Amino acid sequence: MRKEKLEELKYYLEELKTIKVEERNITRPFVTTIGYNCYLNNGRILPREKITKGGNDGSAVIIVPEVNGEYLTVIEPRVFTRYKVAVGFPAGYIEKGENPKLAALRELKEETGYVSENLIELDSYYQDEGISSAYNHIFYAKNCKKEYDQNLDEDEVIRYMLFNYEELLELERMGYLNGANSKLALTRIKKIKE
Amino acid sequence: MRKEKLEELKYYLEELKTIKVEERNITRPFVTTIGYNCYLNNGRILPREKITKGGNDGSAVIIVPEVNGEYLTVIEPRVFTRYKVAVGFPAGYIEKGENPKLAALRELKEETGYVSENLIELDSYYQDEGISSAYNHIFYAKNCKKEYDQNLDEDEVIRYMLFNYEELLELERMGYLNGANSKLALTRIKKIKE
Repeated sequence: MRKEKLEELKYYLEELKTIKVEERNITRPFVTTIGYNCYLNNGRILPREKITKGGNDGSAVIIVPEVNGEYLTVIEPRVFTRYKVAVGFPAGYIEKGENPKLAALRELKEETGYVSENLIELDSYYQDEGISSAYNHIFYAKNCKKEYDQNLDEDEVIRYMLFNYEELLELERMGYLNGANSKLALTRIKKIKE
Repeated sequence: MRKEKLEELKYYLEELKTIKVEERNITRPFVTTIGYNCYLNNGRILPREKITKGGNDGSAVIIVPEVNGEYLTVIEPRVFTRYKVAVGFPAGYIEKGENPKLAALRELKEETGYVSENLIELDSYYQDEGISSAYNHIFYAKNCKKEYDQNLDEDEVIRYMLFNYEELLELERMGYLNGANSKLALTRIKKIKE
């Protein structure tokens, strides 16, 4: 990995690290569950639970933004993971009734200020099909340009950095790019490069 | 896809389909959430929520069982997905204190009755890192043998079938193999075959 990239990454990893955690009471939880009895064709009845996130099903978009042959990643606090901070692709929840492609453009712009006029869907899948109906979409955003400032929610802290493909694989091996969505997205870039 | 495979699959897809769903009250939910305030190195304080499943973090194992050059899949009711039934690899939650490799052997045996003496870890990652500390492991189980009957929990209904690699890709294209874990596992088989 290029030395200046590694140094910038280390700076963010340190800056965004969680140093203390305390439990808090939740009055209106973001994640809630609903119970169901499911009647199968073969006569069996199965109890199941479904989670919702913020009242929606939690479907998300993951964007792989290409900028002059490199890829834009986000560095975020991921307090429940090993390093407390992780590298991944820009991503976010689809809003109620929102088109996945528009959600992808919106999240890319909000998280990084970059825009693209060329979005290609690479894959789609269920995030955690046993307990959720969340259906995620991976988009490849070609030829992205920086045109805006970041525009984050008050609970978000996000840094962004460009890496080439080999550096992304290195970040995966180092354990910093370690989420199911980003890892799956990374396998889909390979197809595009081939 | 081989005709007899497609017919067997269609039989299970029909048999396991959910035909009616009703809400039920949950007295002891499987999924619960805990709230946290997270103090970052840079002074920011972020509220976060973590889900737990059955009191554990929900870490799971996914097993890709190889049987004479074919791969063993499970067909299960997945009531929150498009077809209400899905195809995937054997998988299950790691029990408290359990070693991931032993969890993989246990789940493989319980869900299919197959055993393997040769388990190789292919990958590991966070399932849904924003709201969970669940860390999953994908194992390749070489040279599996059928030695036991299925041994399922009372809430499980699982059929199993062998497919070759090209058929798995076809199942993915058809939308039956559609979960993040199974799709990621499928990309890791490719590496083994190369």
